[in-house]
Amino acid sequence: MTTESAAEAIRRRIRTIPDFPKPGIQFRDITTLLLDAEGLRLAVEQMVTSVEGPIDLVAGIEARGFVFAPAVALALGAGVLLVRKDGKLPGATIAEDYALEYGTDRITIHADACAPGARVLLVDDLIATGGTARAAVRLLRKAGATVTQAAFVIDLPDLGGADALRRDGITVRSLVAYDGD
Amino acid sequence: MTTESAAEAIRRRIRTIPDFPKPGIQFRDITTLLLDAEGLRLAVEQMVTSVEGPIDLVAGIEARGFVFAPAVALALGAGVLLVRKDGKLPGATIAEDYALEYGTDRITIHADACAPGARVLLVDDLIATGGTARAAVRLLRKAGATVTQAAFVIDLPDLGGADALRRDGITVRSLVAYDGD
Repeated sequence: MTTESAAEAIRRRIRTIPDFPKPGIQFRDITTLLLDAEGLRLAVEQMVTSVEGPIDLVAGIEARGFVFAPAVALALGAGVLLVRKDGKLPGATIAEDYALEYGTDRITIHADACAPGARVLLVDDLIATGGTARAAVRLLRKAGATVTQAAFVIDLPDLGGADALRRDGITVRSLVAYDGD
Repeated sequence: MTTESAAEAIRRRIRTIPDFPKPGIQFRDITTLLLDAEGLRLAVEQMVTSVEGPIDLVAGIEARGFVFAPAVALALGAGVLLVRKDGKLPGATIAEDYALEYGTDRITIHADACAPGARVLLVDDLIATGGTARAAVRLLRKAGATVTQAAFVIDLPDLGGADALRRDGITVRSLVAYDGD
């Protein structure tokens, strides 16, 4: 009998759905991981274990980053900072744009969301090209945060986002990687 | 010296922003509660404490319900079921429409998300008119779930959503209420 690693236990709970949202894309679906109490527990535990040093705030990117950021924050004794799509936050915001395949998109945080020097961990479910994550890092740094770590459930390394984040000075950790995406 | 209750500690961390998203609306902003590690901890703890009996799945409504559902699920030893806006879930879905002030909107879950008889707790940040929450209950019941409890951080009782949910057979609990909204 061999013991299953945490990464293996997480990977086999992630479902792959072909051709979503468009033909040729293999969509890595974490909803099956989340439905499983043990899968949810393992994913959060492994993200928490990967963090180094004290963290003041865990920033979650809308919408699937919201699923992991608060649970990770609770375990770290940190607060949660919501990185939202444009127009969703009620207070005064600061914004950062990022390129999409066609056009641009915008993320926002509350202008008063973090104190200067706050140590912020960035969390999302998946890192692909890294467009959103890198914009979130720029935005948090613009707000005065110290951002040096990011944690993802899934990395698609061939799309280069994790490497790009590393060049931005971020230590990137992920629980499972899918090559060839 | 008086001891602050959990409800008071939560309430004073919620910020009110006037005239968002439109004039006359007092927006109850939970982002300030979440930024505070103790506020986050208290809110999740109080939601968990309010639950009765075993729960298999905690259903969170996109997007702010995603913030609370996983943390509550972890504490209950349950999984998480994502109730998403139309077009976001990659697998085969079932849908439910609900009325907005002008027009309708649609929420979806994966058709295979819950086993018949699964005991599902519904979670969101706020209950107002209850349109989305009631649609989520209908949708979960259509999927075969047993839904008898819902937990919210904030109730706006004057808008009638909590009472409507109770008429649907749901035990509704909230951590703080704002009258006159």
